[in-house]
Amino acid sequence: MKEPHSIAPGRIIRRKKDGSLEFLRDDLTIEEPLEIRIGRKALATTMRTPDHDDELAAGFLVSEAIVHDRSAITEISANGENRVVVRLAEGVKLKLNAAQRFGTISSSCGLCGKTSIDEIRQNFPTIGSASVRIDIETLLSLPEKLRKAQSDFARTGGIHAAGIFDSSGELKIVREDIGRHNAVDKVIGRGFLDGLFPLDRHVLLVSGRASFEILQKALAAGVPIVAAVSAPSTLAADFARESNQTLIGFLRPPSFNIYSHIERVILEAP
Amino acid sequence: MKEPHSIAPGRIIRRKKDGSLEFLRDDLTIEEPLEIRIGRKALATTMRTPDHDDELAAGFLVSEAIVHDRSAITEISANGENRVVVRLAEGVKLKLNAAQRFGTISSSCGLCGKTSIDEIRQNFPTIGSASVRIDIETLLSLPEKLRKAQSDFARTGGIHAAGIFDSSGELKIVREDIGRHNAVDKVIGRGFLDGLFPLDRHVLLVSGRASFEILQKALAAGVPIVAAVSAPSTLAADFARESNQTLIGFLRPPSFNIYSHIERVILEAP
Repeated sequence: MKEPHSIAPGRIIRRKKDGSLEFLRDDLTIEEPLEIRIGRKALATTMRTPDHDDELAAGFLVSEAIVHDRSAITEISANGENRVVVRLAEGVKLKLNAAQRFGTISSSCGLCGKTSIDEIRQNFPTIGSASVRIDIETLLSLPEKLRKAQSDFARTGGIHAAGIFDSSGELKIVREDIGRHNAVDKVIGRGFLDGLFPLDRHVLLVSGRASFEILQKALAAGVPIVAAVSAPSTLAADFARESNQTLIGFLRPPSFNIYSHIERVILEAP
Repeated sequence: MKEPHSIAPGRIIRRKKDGSLEFLRDDLTIEEPLEIRIGRKALATTMRTPDHDDELAAGFLVSEAIVHDRSAITEISANGENRVVVRLAEGVKLKLNAAQRFGTISSSCGLCGKTSIDEIRQNFPTIGSASVRIDIETLLSLPEKLRKAQSDFARTGGIHAAGIFDSSGELKIVREDIGRHNAVDKVIGRGFLDGLFPLDRHVLLVSGRASFEILQKALAAGVPIVAAVSAPSTLAADFARESNQTLIGFLRPPSFNIYSHIERVILEAP
């Protein structure tokens, strides 16, 4: 996938392996701040790679449990000036919790302690136990499919990717961003805006590590299986276990680790 | 460096290369929220790897231009319960800018647009042009020195490292954290608390990518040379150029890229 707005050329000096120097053009991932507003109220600012700002805003509002239904959002205007304005449907109240009102709402944290983490989990239904399963061959095929759908990562090494797959391994949505959490907000925001929620027959794959936030966002979208190419954190593993989410880490074919709810992975040969 | 409080064992299932499964212990990087308070006022919450919370708080306050001199902080109490309380010296006023008051202060963003980015730069003196230089062999030796000082990264693949080196390549401070920005806050916080500011004869090396924030934090500490093992963003490169900082990316011996202020790198052989 070519994302023409997410990279910018720069002039650099490179030292080559033979020790010689060359002057050349290099592509860098664009990083710019985005302010997310609800009407006139500034809600958060995040550093992101421009493009798909509407999806980023929608995914952020879903992850923060500010909106639950597609009908709650009537309009999202991304003006191309690093600001996106969301209009909520009449009657939808903007209830911010204490942490959000206090200003700790942000792309990197929306909580203030263990109690708040339990509260976050309670903002969203736990994943049902009868949900989807995935077989090993399908699971092992996902990282390569995500990589093939990316262009920027390969070119700059400076961008994260997130993909939503169905349980047969078909890639449904892929987005890239300099921030891992933003890439996830974009894919779940796209799913939300397209009325696909809950994504309870789906797998979320992230190109890097799995932090608590990634699991929180997946839960907000109803995603039962989360896979990461790199390591999860303790809090991600704990959160997944208690939310009834299957968490897979170090998904690097032919091996991977399962940190929670192994029952969704079909381990035996067909 | 062993960081006994930063990892936790977990029970996992691993699929091995031959397709067989094994149940084993795996070390995960600990991720927990930390609330940073000034007196009774909650200032920010960040997801971090516990340990060195006092340094993290100090580095954060320096990066946000809330404190400038060591004498401004009289006490930092980390109670081991995911909260750190900073006491400022009498007469030190807590002036928060509009963005901070509004709640966009956070580990991932302290700004709301291009104007604010210029303001951030103006919070700190530009690096002097007569500052330190580094030779290529020294520069190329830094990543291996950082890696050798780490233990957790190798064990979990889920942790970032930041190191402060002097211009002869000696590693002075190294810290690890699940968040890249936290690792940088910890190293500059340590330098600040030890009265070493400004770090104007030093190099900051980060194990991953260089975002805008990393350059901002380095500027707050007076660091003239910033190197990253992976890619910088456009905003990081722009910020470095205008702050008179040398930015090196993809520092993977024997090659590297220079994005700004090449004059601090001694390119010719001795």
